[in-house]
Amino acid sequence: MSMENLLRTHIGTSLRAARVAQGRTLRAVAADARVSLGYLSEVERGQKEASSELLNAICSALDLSLSTVLTDVTELIKRHETPVLTVVASEVISDVDAA
Amino acid sequence: MSMENLLRTHIGTSLRAARVAQGRTLRAVAADARVSLGYLSEVERGQKEASSELLNAICSALDLSLSTVLTDVTELIKRHETPVLTVVASEVISDVDAA
Repeated sequence: MSMENLLRTHIGTSLRAARVAQGRTLRAVAADARVSLGYLSEVERGQKEASSELLNAICSALDLSLSTVLTDVTELIKRHETPVLTVVASEVISDVDAA
Repeated sequence: MSMENLLRTHIGTSLRAARVAQGRTLRAVAADARVSLGYLSEVERGQKEASSELLNAICSALDLSLSTVLTDVTELIKRHETPVLTVVASEVISDVDAA
C-alpha cells in the first residue's frame, strides 16, 4: 500500500462509508448516479479518479452535498498528515492532566 | 460558463490564488512540481482534472499541505452551494435585530 496521502483514496473512503451507512448497494447507488457499477467500485477503492461531473452525480445519488463529502475528505487527509503531531498533543494533554 | 459546482474548478481557483499570492510564475511552480507549464495552466483554469499524485506534487511545490488546499476548496464549494440559504439567514438575522 502506498504511503502517499492521495485525494482519490480519501474520496473513495468517504463515498463508501456514506453508502454503507445508508445500507445501500453499489448497484443501487451506481444506477441513481448513472455510472457503471464497476466505475463506482473503482472510485470507492481509490483505484480511479472520479471526474468532477461524476463525483457530483455520485454525491447527488447519496443525497450528500459536495461540500459535505469534501469536509469529510479533508478530515481524513488531516489524519494522515499529522500522526506525529497528534501523538505529541496527546502526550502534552496527559502531562497537563497528570500535573 | 457552467452553473455546475465542480471540484476541479475550485481546486484550480485555490491553486492559482496560492501561486499568485506567492508572486510565483506558472513556469516556476510547474518546474518545482515537475509538471508541464501547460498542464498546470489547464489545472488552474479548471480545464483538466489533476491526478491525485500530481495534485500532491503541485501542493508540495507551493509549500502547502493537501488539507490546506482542500479546506480552501471546501469553502469555495460551500459559497456556490448556499447562496439562497445565506440570504435567508441574513434576513432572519435582520428580523431578529429589528424585533
